[in-house]
Amino acid sequence: MATTSENLTAYELTGHEPWKAFRAREQRSLEVKRDAVLQTAAKMFLEVGYRKTSMSQLAQRLNITKPALYYYFRNKEELLVECYRAGIDSIEAALKGALECKGNSLEKVRSYIESYATAIVTFDFGRCVATLDDSELSDQARRQVRNLKRRIDAAIRGYIEEGIADGSVASCNAKMAAFAIAGAINWIGNWYRPNGALGAEEIVAEFTRLLTSGLHPCPPEPATSKQARNSASGSTRNGRSGL
Amino acid sequence: MATTSENLTAYELTGHEPWKAFRAREQRSLEVKRDAVLQTAAKMFLEVGYRKTSMSQLAQRLNITKPALYYYFRNKEELLVECYRAGIDSIEAALKGALECKGNSLEKVRSYIESYATAIVTFDFGRCVATLDDSELSDQARRQVRNLKRRIDAAIRGYIEEGIADGSVASCNAKMAAFAIAGAINWIGNWYRPNGALGAEEIVAEFTRLLTSGLHPCPPEPATSKQARNSASGSTRNGRSGL
Repeated sequence: MATTSENLTAYELTGHEPWKAFRAREQRSLEVKRDAVLQTAAKMFLEVGYRKTSMSQLAQRLNITKPALYYYFRNKEELLVECYRAGIDSIEAALKGALECKGNSLEKVRSYIESYATAIVTFDFGRCVATLDDSELSDQARRQVRNLKRRIDAAIRGYIEEGIADGSVASCNAKMAAFAIAGAINWIGNWYRPNGALGAEEIVAEFTRLLTSGLHPCPPEPATSKQARNSASGSTRNGRSGL
Repeated sequence: MATTSENLTAYELTGHEPWKAFRAREQRSLEVKRDAVLQTAAKMFLEVGYRKTSMSQLAQRLNITKPALYYYFRNKEELLVECYRAGIDSIEAALKGALECKGNSLEKVRSYIESYATAIVTFDFGRCVATLDDSELSDQARRQVRNLKRRIDAAIRGYIEEGIADGSVASCNAKMAAFAIAGAINWIGNWYRPNGALGAEEIVAEFTRLLTSGLHPCPPEPATSKQARNSASGSTRNGRSGL
């Protein structure tokens, strides 16, 4: 006779399930706490710089003890590497939209710029990738981070090359065009403030238009940039320069 | 009788002039040495980062003693401030060309981009302004440096606003356009290597074209960018990504 749940006692039915469920809940709780630590570290790195953030200050801000902090992350460098990793994950997730774009290569480039700029203005981790100095990392961690960055760089360069080949993008040096786009967008991380006068959507729309159509008045304006036009009055929270 | 040189002895004729000449020569020699110290500091800051450069390593590279080094600069922060100052001077000097440009506002913007990019790829000090982290500075020094940067930022924004008014530049948010241009050009400092595969002139021409005409194939191409077109084979020395 086949054993079914009807033939089992309550203990046999659950087996070790209560412990499994407990461990799963405990694991999720640890992950939530680890994420909270990482989010707070990213905010502090962006506010005062990586070097000026200490593990003691971070523990204080989180209202936990230093040993509790070290339970989640071995050291400050591990926090930085994980901020980079989370940032690159969020950028890559945003860029999936560009992969699904059905237009020509210029439209794919535009979609890429829009997604990348969105990731930078939306996620603290994205801004960490754009602005934190990876020379603070050990050689091994830096190599790891640079490999991750290279994947993103290769994607935009590929779209530009395809666009040159199909005529939708002006003949140019694809490598330098990718550098110019990455530079302009990454720089947003240096001046953008989440609650500043320039809104995230406005920035994304304006950068998308500027980096595809340039400053010339002649090319047709893409639909995405309409909301940003004629809005020259914005200023960043602290009036900083873009340099 | 008026005293003329004919009535004076050799000693009276020269007076203290030999000492004056000696002191002037000594002063010039000090300035030359101080410049050499600053140039070497800029190179080391760019190569290994500000924080990882020590006064001992700098003295060793210059083949002078540490007390000799401290004779020229009080501390590492003073070296950083002076690198910024020299960089901003070199950028402002390059930008004077843009002021003399007789074209319309778009041509002035183009001339500005060309001059700024030239300053970044030509001068180590220019790259210091573009890439070194000013959060390393004391509050007072940082304010000083940010004021200097703001002057440059205001200039490009002004040209863009003039261009929007006279119709030579597409209607856009001048503040963000200035940020995008500054970001793309400053980022050059992160990937450019003086003896790398991408030449300085090629970079300047390509960035000037990209940042004014964008990626659209339709706008007329400015004369300055011709040498960079169809040259998509360049690579930076260490194959780094532009991110």
